[in-house]
Amino acid sequence: MSLATSAPDAIDRATCAALDAADPLARFRERFALPEGVVYLDGNSLGALPRATPEHLQRVITEEWGTGLIRSWNDAGWFDKPTALGDRIAPLVGAAPGEVVLGDSTSASLFQVVTAAARLRPGRRAIVSERANFPTDLYVLESVQELLGEPGRPLERRLIDDDGPTLDEVLDDDVAVVVLTHVNYRTGRMFDLAEVTRRVHEAGALMVWDLCHSVGAVPVELNAAGADFAIGCTYKYLNGGPGSPSFIWAAARHHGVARPPLTGWHGHARPFDFTVGYEPADGITRFRVGTPQLLAVAGLEASLDLWAEVDLAELREKSLRLTELFICLVDTRLAEWGIEVVTPRQSAQRGSQVALRAGGGARVGGGALRPGDGALTPGDGYALMQALIERGVIGDFRAPDLMRFGFAPLYVTHTDVWDAVAALEDLLRSGSWREPRFARRGAVT
Amino acid sequence: MSLATSAPDAIDRATCAALDAADPLARFRERFALPEGVVYLDGNSLGALPRATPEHLQRVITEEWGTGLIRSWNDAGWFDKPTALGDRIAPLVGAAPGEVVLGDSTSASLFQVVTAAARLRPGRRAIVSERANFPTDLYVLESVQELLGEPGRPLERRLIDDDGPTLDEVLDDDVAVVVLTHVNYRTGRMFDLAEVTRRVHEAGALMVWDLCHSVGAVPVELNAAGADFAIGCTYKYLNGGPGSPSFIWAAARHHGVARPPLTGWHGHARPFDFTVGYEPADGITRFRVGTPQLLAVAGLEASLDLWAEVDLAELREKSLRLTELFICLVDTRLAEWGIEVVTPRQSAQRGSQVALRAGGGARVGGGALRPGDGALTPGDGYALMQALIERGVIGDFRAPDLMRFGFAPLYVTHTDVWDAVAALEDLLRSGSWREPRFARRGAVT
Repeated sequence: MSLATSAPDAIDRATCAALDAADPLARFRERFALPEGVVYLDGNSLGALPRATPEHLQRVITEEWGTGLIRSWNDAGWFDKPTALGDRIAPLVGAAPGEVVLGDSTSASLFQVVTAAARLRPGRRAIVSERANFPTDLYVLESVQELLGEPGRPLERRLIDDDGPTLDEVLDDDVAVVVLTHVNYRTGRMFDLAEVTRRVHEAGALMVWDLCHSVGAVPVELNAAGADFAIGCTYKYLNGGPGSPSFIWAAARHHGVARPPLTGWHGHARPFDFTVGYEPADGITRFRVGTPQLLAVAGLEASLDLWAEVDLAELREKSLRLTELFICLVDTRLAEWGIEVVTPRQSAQRGSQVALRAGGGARVGGGALRPGDGALTPGDGYALMQALIERGVIGDFRAPDLMRFGFAPLYVTHTDVWDAVAALEDLLRSGSWREPRFARRGAVT
Repeated sequence: MSLATSAPDAIDRATCAALDAADPLARFRERFALPEGVVYLDGNSLGALPRATPEHLQRVITEEWGTGLIRSWNDAGWFDKPTALGDRIAPLVGAAPGEVVLGDSTSASLFQVVTAAARLRPGRRAIVSERANFPTDLYVLESVQELLGEPGRPLERRLIDDDGPTLDEVLDDDVAVVVLTHVNYRTGRMFDLAEVTRRVHEAGALMVWDLCHSVGAVPVELNAAGADFAIGCTYKYLNGGPGSPSFIWAAARHHGVARPPLTGWHGHARPFDFTVGYEPADGITRFRVGTPQLLAVAGLEASLDLWAEVDLAELREKSLRLTELFICLVDTRLAEWGIEVVTPRQSAQRGSQVALRAGGGARVGGGALRPGDGALTPGDGYALMQALIERGVIGDFRAPDLMRFGFAPLYVTHTDVWDAVAALEDLLRSGSWREPRFARRGAVT
């Protein structure tokens, strides 16, 4: 059943149940331990718990750590986990075996690859990113600019913006590296990875992709695009557990020459020779830093077992069906309250999440809402989201004005989408979200 | 019972059992899930599993992650865990609340503090360390030297060495930072933390301590010594689990001015404002980087519950009793095989581990051993250690020549020490360690 050929008002909960029944990924839902009564639309921030994870962790803790003790570094393959799991992430991002390795946090990994990339373009003094990028990316760039610049003369940072300048306007032969997030953390807008990479290369610069909101959400083809470096997050769509390790990808052509700045002993050519001088390992291993946090790694390992069974084309189809359904239902049922869809409607420009803004639309058939009419304002999104969460529909709010809803295709159903919009509609109708307990106090990722 | 007043040949297994019976820390042994038949003397590399840890992890995984989902960032206090657990590590290193925070790997954390420290001494162009330092420390320094130096002119590195130069010989007014490991990873030799700090400060430099082999092993008094920065490891004596997160300490006087290079969003003053520009948080929080690996953090949390009950004076007393007993038994029972104690015999210069070298001693009463007599050579330590491990006595080997034995006072008994030496003596007597299966193939930390 195609949504595009259904009249909007022909969609009801039974339609959604029928879509669920026909869903080729439906079998994955029961592989997750989602709490009863919850519609979980925040897997773009923290992925749900795979049912197999607790037992796997228990085995790693009691057998590998408790009984194996230090011997597990060899016997349980601990030392090689970062590259072994990297090889299992590789097919999810269009990378080859030996090109992906686990890192620490995504911030530290971004520092690792951006510094290495900029060092491959000595003499070029600008780094390009986007004003709307996830802030940690911009903060990390500030540090790289200073460290790779000369005293009192940091590298230059140029930020593209929807209001200008554009990428083409900032690219020139002084640009060393372009660092962009493939799918925007707030709006879900997706760059054309291949096309952007092509234009960056035309300018002679290197392309670093942040895949935090892409991996496990949309197909990514790093090698096909000829990109240079990438990092990504495993605790969102990949369900590795809270704070599970980042990953780093480097195109094989850069392995022999890249010089990452975090020169820990796990990236050394012969770590157990305990030499005084640093000599980077061959291959992607040189991006390793120190001892990996193995309990967090074990969480990721359990979820990658599950990902090995996923067909990424089916994943993308379902993702688009879910986000399109959500957009369609918001348009038809919530527009009268002034709820606006911020995420691009063209599927090629959309990741697996949708952002809404309160107060951005017009009351259908009723003229524009004005403050004083009880009209919504953008900041009301915060209280609306808290009220939604209290009703068991979990998304999140991103300051200053966005309600985010993530649609992890492995466990979100079409019925979940229906129920989420219905809950939001009910809140808007009753006005119960205006109760003081939903007012702003703080927020987290 | 004092070992010092016992004639060496008065010590037998019953003596050790009596020491165990009188041990005020004996109650902690049953709090660890050590495998049957194992004498675990490698807690200086990977600490043993506390019995309470699996259940704690299970609760974090199923309740906080599985049920709480994204809400646990607030409701379970996830966001503040790095500082909350830092406050629980603080008393173990003589630090104040608000001065300690969890990091990523110790390598990344050392990069974080050494760069911050060197930036506090602009104009000074040398960093001092020790040739015998753990290699990752030296590798990290190489990177800092390059990043903080000028193009083609890295900062200078000066390495002290037992064979010279001494610390006093390398200290002058060009030294920005001194980076030393308090207890040496190979020999267990311990620096006088207060005295070294004092001399470094006299030269106008800042003092960074690596406490990987100190915390949970020996008393550390960072503030009393007036030190500047420190990092440490939680997966050795603190039993946080394989690869559990490092910690960072910075003296409060540096908090407002330190500029760490890993500028991730968790170190930002207002991370959830998602601003474009980096502004470091107040206090130790500015040393945070990205999202903490919370399953690894949970492992550490469980073990810190246990550490809250430990009297550090009792810990040190037992540690010295264990290492002294081991040294004494090696001297009296293994010297004839040419097994030499490398670790300092003066207790003030010894951490909680002892290193032995094969082939370094003389046969008691039998003249020096010569190759060809079946005499041991230093490299034989590798096979000896493998044979010991097969018998259930777990230490490790550090290239090129040291057998390391760690004595974690919370779970190692005096009887363990006896049994370890007895097993080594038996191996030496039988020569079974020369079987080919024990020959070198690789090693791990």
